[in-house]
Amino acid sequence: MEFCDFLIIKSLVLFAKMSYQKLHETSKATSILASVQSLLEWDQETYMPNDAADYRGQQVSAIANLVHKQKTSPKFVKQLKSLINLETGAVLDTSLSLQILASLREFRRDYLQASKLPASFVKLFSKTTSQGLHAWSYAKKNDRFSHFAPHLEKIVKLSRKKAEYLGYKEHPYDALLDLHEPGVTVATLTPLFSKLKTALTALVKEVADRPRPAPITGHFVESKQLELSAHLLKIMGFDKASSRLDLSMHPFCVFLHSKDVRMTTHLHTHTPFPCIFSVLHEGGHGLYDQGLPEEQFGSPLGEAASVAVHESQSRFWETFIGHALPFWKHFYPVLQKAYPESFAALSLEDFYRTINTVKRSFIRIDADEVTYSLHVIIRFEIEKALIEGSLKVKDLPKVWNQKMEEYLGITPKTDAEGCLQDTHWAGGYFGYFPSYTLGNIYAAQLFDTFQKEHPQWEAQLALGDLSFIRLWLKEKIHKWGREYIPTQLIERATGSPVSESHYIHYLEKKYLVVLNKNS
Amino acid sequence: MEFCDFLIIKSLVLFAKMSYQKLHETSKATSILASVQSLLEWDQETYMPNDAADYRGQQVSAIANLVHKQKTSPKFVKQLKSLINLETGAVLDTSLSLQILASLREFRRDYLQASKLPASFVKLFSKTTSQGLHAWSYAKKNDRFSHFAPHLEKIVKLSRKKAEYLGYKEHPYDALLDLHEPGVTVATLTPLFSKLKTALTALVKEVADRPRPAPITGHFVESKQLELSAHLLKIMGFDKASSRLDLSMHPFCVFLHSKDVRMTTHLHTHTPFPCIFSVLHEGGHGLYDQGLPEEQFGSPLGEAASVAVHESQSRFWETFIGHALPFWKHFYPVLQKAYPESFAALSLEDFYRTINTVKRSFIRIDADEVTYSLHVIIRFEIEKALIEGSLKVKDLPKVWNQKMEEYLGITPKTDAEGCLQDTHWAGGYFGYFPSYTLGNIYAAQLFDTFQKEHPQWEAQLALGDLSFIRLWLKEKIHKWGREYIPTQLIERATGSPVSESHYIHYLEKKYLVVLNKNS
Repeated sequence: MEFCDFLIIKSLVLFAKMSYQKLHETSKATSILASVQSLLEWDQETYMPNDAADYRGQQVSAIANLVHKQKTSPKFVKQLKSLINLETGAVLDTSLSLQILASLREFRRDYLQASKLPASFVKLFSKTTSQGLHAWSYAKKNDRFSHFAPHLEKIVKLSRKKAEYLGYKEHPYDALLDLHEPGVTVATLTPLFSKLKTALTALVKEVADRPRPAPITGHFVESKQLELSAHLLKIMGFDKASSRLDLSMHPFCVFLHSKDVRMTTHLHTHTPFPCIFSVLHEGGHGLYDQGLPEEQFGSPLGEAASVAVHESQSRFWETFIGHALPFWKHFYPVLQKAYPESFAALSLEDFYRTINTVKRSFIRIDADEVTYSLHVIIRFEIEKALIEGSLKVKDLPKVWNQKMEEYLGITPKTDAEGCLQDTHWAGGYFGYFPSYTLGNIYAAQLFDTFQKEHPQWEAQLALGDLSFIRLWLKEKIHKWGREYIPTQLIERATGSPVSESHYIHYLEKKYLVVLNKNS
Repeated sequence: MEFCDFLIIKSLVLFAKMSYQKLHETSKATSILASVQSLLEWDQETYMPNDAADYRGQQVSAIANLVHKQKTSPKFVKQLKSLINLETGAVLDTSLSLQILASLREFRRDYLQASKLPASFVKLFSKTTSQGLHAWSYAKKNDRFSHFAPHLEKIVKLSRKKAEYLGYKEHPYDALLDLHEPGVTVATLTPLFSKLKTALTALVKEVADRPRPAPITGHFVESKQLELSAHLLKIMGFDKASSRLDLSMHPFCVFLHSKDVRMTTHLHTHTPFPCIFSVLHEGGHGLYDQGLPEEQFGSPLGEAASVAVHESQSRFWETFIGHALPFWKHFYPVLQKAYPESFAALSLEDFYRTINTVKRSFIRIDADEVTYSLHVIIRFEIEKALIEGSLKVKDLPKVWNQKMEEYLGITPKTDAEGCLQDTHWAGGYFGYFPSYTLGNIYAAQLFDTFQKEHPQWEAQLALGDLSFIRLWLKEKIHKWGREYIPTQLIERATGSPVSESHYIHYLEKKYLVVLNKNS
């Protein structure tokens, strides 16, 4: 190569890099605006006066509109087009780093998603689901599915239309899945969930009817629950200078940016566990957010890989760590000291058995780790059928109850504790439910690798050391942002393709072996 | 008039009204966005994690830019121009209601202010004051005026330039005054402040050296201070469904909209008074905001008349009510019950005397109601001189100390407790200080009328009834928004032109007569 050619190529690469930096700057401005929307949503659930709800809706939608506009602005599109062909996905300068190439792939993905839905459709969808949520709330309260049914019919129809706008190769539901879990399809999910269903149904039959330990009772002073929460977050690795814990009706975690991650929990005076496990769960989400590379804020490389990968982090902390014996070896004496009346006379082993009780129950969000995924699989099968048209809305309650009986061995007495329990469908979130179980599947696979790479993990954890877990997850998952699609990310982290087998083995070993001893 | 002409005129009026409604809608969208900025600012002072400060700056400036853009958007300007001539201020359809005409006058005023400053100047000003605030903070901490001086020189120069951009008739400082207090000028302010200065200097000499009651001591549990605060806000007329009280370093009140007014206070365990008087002060601001007509949200008619009118409301509650004997007739027993160790043995009369102690002091924000305005007048005289160029920045400390000695009879030992104490100049807020004293002048004049119109006010107040005060202020001030300019508003409310005499009489009567008895 002539020296002159070399210079030209070199300056072209430099030019492409600069173009990418400009694109990142533009996108960062959008992320700053989106973080304002996150603050509005956090405030709405924590401190906002009740009567401000209407105005809050206007504030959120004003910012959401601006974010959408910026995501599809001519300036952004021009910058993106200068680096990648939006039609084909071909990158115009392949000498860019692999990281930047991955970022462009995801930038394009986001842009296509944001631009495929016509504004009029987005408006109609938003109006329909807003009315749907209203009707659902009434229907759930009064146990009247018929009140919600016509709304759900509209929402299903619009969701199907959404799938058409977004496009898919094999199944319309694929388009909706892809919104939450890139790369996952009906074809990949069906065998995974089918094997899981078979194993879990058998496991539930085996363990759910075992004699249960007496429930833990007492009066759990709120201030002490908050002290325990603060202690937990501290040893998990949170710094008060860049995170918060507040109270809300339903716990959640919101990520403004790496210096401002806010978690919430809830307090009940008759039990400390919803608070403790919410802190571990939301803390898991929060650590993922804070583990994303800060310098990538505003680009896909500074964002979580997917809803399910996010859920894998929260479940890793809540169940794989937080429901494990070694964790409580350190933490149970702390709990005993806080509430001696309830725990002083209860052995660690009995306590461990109590928090790992398996029970057939109607409500997904209260389910234990064995039954949980069966609740999700029911929803997956139903929503797939609704979207493809093989199930009519009017038949939903009947099919729901049949599946509950078949998988969990119980039949809801009302639709309120049956097919009306979740808000997702009313809000138009078809394709979201599978992420919960995928999160568990990913978490179990990660947990297997974690145990192999940290053979002393139980001893370390029993000493109250959690930092090595956070660092391991950061290295394996957090720091990569969206550089790899979820299944690739998990495969890279664990050395094997995503499989439900780890989750099944984990549950079978825990519930058929460990917890079966001396029972 | 022919019937046909009548119809044409009627439909033209209707057309103008509809055009106004459209203008209001456009402006309302801007106010919704501005209310998001208010939330960001509230959060920054209350709950935001420390390390999030940099990002918060970016979030605030992103929203501020969008607000500015919307305030000068082609759509808005076109709508405004269809109703009022922006050059002359002539309204194109004089058959519009007086309210709408007033609103258009203020819309035009805001637009001219927003559009007169070139974007490059706004950027430079913001950058310079941002650096100025940094330097000021260091200079105050280390008592090094010389560190701040070069920054202040730049800020004075730019503020003078700002005055040129904004335009003025007589004095460049008028342009800066007008930003905060429409219609007030050096020519109107000078005689007002001069008479006040003479009277207050004499009054201070008379009362500041009287023997002082022993200070109140004790340990004031924080939770009880918060209970007292909640009680106060409740009897002032606040509803928890549309307002909040939180803690912050410096108390403030922020108005998102009528359903979301947020006040803060601060707690000290060695004295309950900063908390109590902050709640009354910020509560006064909050009641004004909540008393604005909600249907006018987004138009000038739904906004406070000025900074000084706002201050008149907070001072009305904090000093004219909150430092008056009848208020404590009801509230002192409540305080005594909360902190019996400190108050059980102290009579109401002695308590009243203690909270109304006059003292020469260096720090404006800690000053009592007699000395307070002298602190402000010093700043007014100095900043006017800086802007007109008759005072050089390097001579500021000397002149400051001379004036402190002349008006208050004390000389600061350091610049930190002298000319470096306030943040305003570093932040570029020239023309703001006079509003504090104007607020007191307005409040005193309102208080005179209030007493005449409610001859039984002392008895009513002593029973713990505050609602009639709120309703009176709403009727006289709150509900008018910006329909009248501040001086007109006060004149309408009180029946006489704005005068310092009410404030002087109030202070002289209270400190020379009432508090002089049995002393």
